Amino acid sequence: MPHIELPELPGIVGLLVQYPQTAGPLNGLADALLRGPSSLSPADRETIAAYVSARNECTFCAETHGASPRHVHAAHADTAEARTGAADNGTVDAGIVDAVIAHGERADVGPKLQALLAIAEKVRVDGRSVSAADIARAREAGADDKAIHDTVLIAAAFCMFNRYVDGLATLTPDRPEAYAQHAKNLAEGGYLQEG
Amino acid sequence: MPHIELPELPGIVGLLVQYPQTAGPLNGLADALLRGPSSLSPADRETIAAYVSARNECTFCAETHGASPRHVHAAHADTAEARTGAADNGTVDAGIVDAVIAHGERADVGPKLQALLAIAEKVRVDGRSVSAADIARAREAGADDKAIHDTVLIAAAFCMFNRYVDGLATLTPDRPEAYAQHAKNLAEGGYLQEG
Repeated sequence: MPHIELPELPGIVGLLVQYPQTAGPLNGLADALLRGPSSLSPADRETIAAYVSARNECTFCAETHGASPRHVHAAHADTAEARTGAADNGTVDAGIVDAVIAHGERADVGPKLQALLAIAEKVRVDGRSVSAADIARAREAGADDKAIHDTVLIAAAFCMFNRYVDGLATLTPDRPEAYAQHAKNLAEGGYLQEG
Repeated sequence: MPHIELPELPGIVGLLVQYPQTAGPLNGLADALLRGPSSLSPADRETIAAYVSARNECTFCAETHGASPRHVHAAHADTAEARTGAADNGTVDAGIVDAVIAHGERADVGPKLQALLAIAEKVRVDGRSVSAADIARAREAGADDKAIHDTVLIAAAFCMFNRYVDGLATLTPDRPEAYAQHAKNLAEGGYLQEG
């Protein structure tokens, strides 16, 4: 049961409906970060968001951003095998997201995304731990300033979204269909339709 | 030196100038959370923001939101004595902020703010750790849904701002005057003037 009175809607959705004054900028931030102009594809950005959310063990956010339920729950076990094949959830390949959640920066996603995932994980734990060597590795793999900026802010923002969703004990649906529908809405309509 | 090319401006300010697409919603969020309608005073909300930032050891954010430098640096030592007297930085009493940073929920700030600080610290570490008992304690001390919501989202949002500022290694001024001026600008003009 949520800690405060909310409409019966899953995860952040109930919060955005109940608190429209903060919903506006929160949706605007998600839209700019995940769908706005960037040198990173929306799929890469959603993958970073799902990875950070899974490492924070925020089931609602991880599954919304393309992860399959069993991989979210296995995120900290570090033994789950990568699943292949794409799910029908818009822009994100659930096979890739699941592989990233299972294997982190060792997932077979190319050196640029691997380097950015390493930065995202450091930001998740403590922003100060990102080193000049981490940045140099990302640049050598082709990341520009905007890619590095967006990776750091996506990781930081999902540290916020995860804590907002979990700190108020919002509803986490058990049914995978709930996430598939929510992800489909976001893929088709973007983040600015909510709130 | 920052990890990406930024104007020579301290902390988040350079990021807001260089990346206006995300600056808009970030400023909008800070404004809604810290200055918008709430059952908590702006001073209480700034105190929660400074406390979370100090616990995350983000000097720029903690000092911007009203803490004195030596108390930020002593935040994890837990031995610093509370300083009395108010600083000339707009709405926030630096003596209260410093006492909160030094003593956390045991600072002499009344049972409602004490209970909310306890919730903020749990959110900072892991949103899932906020318990029904934590919420009941805040309600008994007079906190309503909006106060609980705002506390959780302020704590979560500063977990983002702290990681954004530190993850990109932005400039942290040594001179206390730099924070005093920035805090004065925010107190007088609010968060929407930036970015």
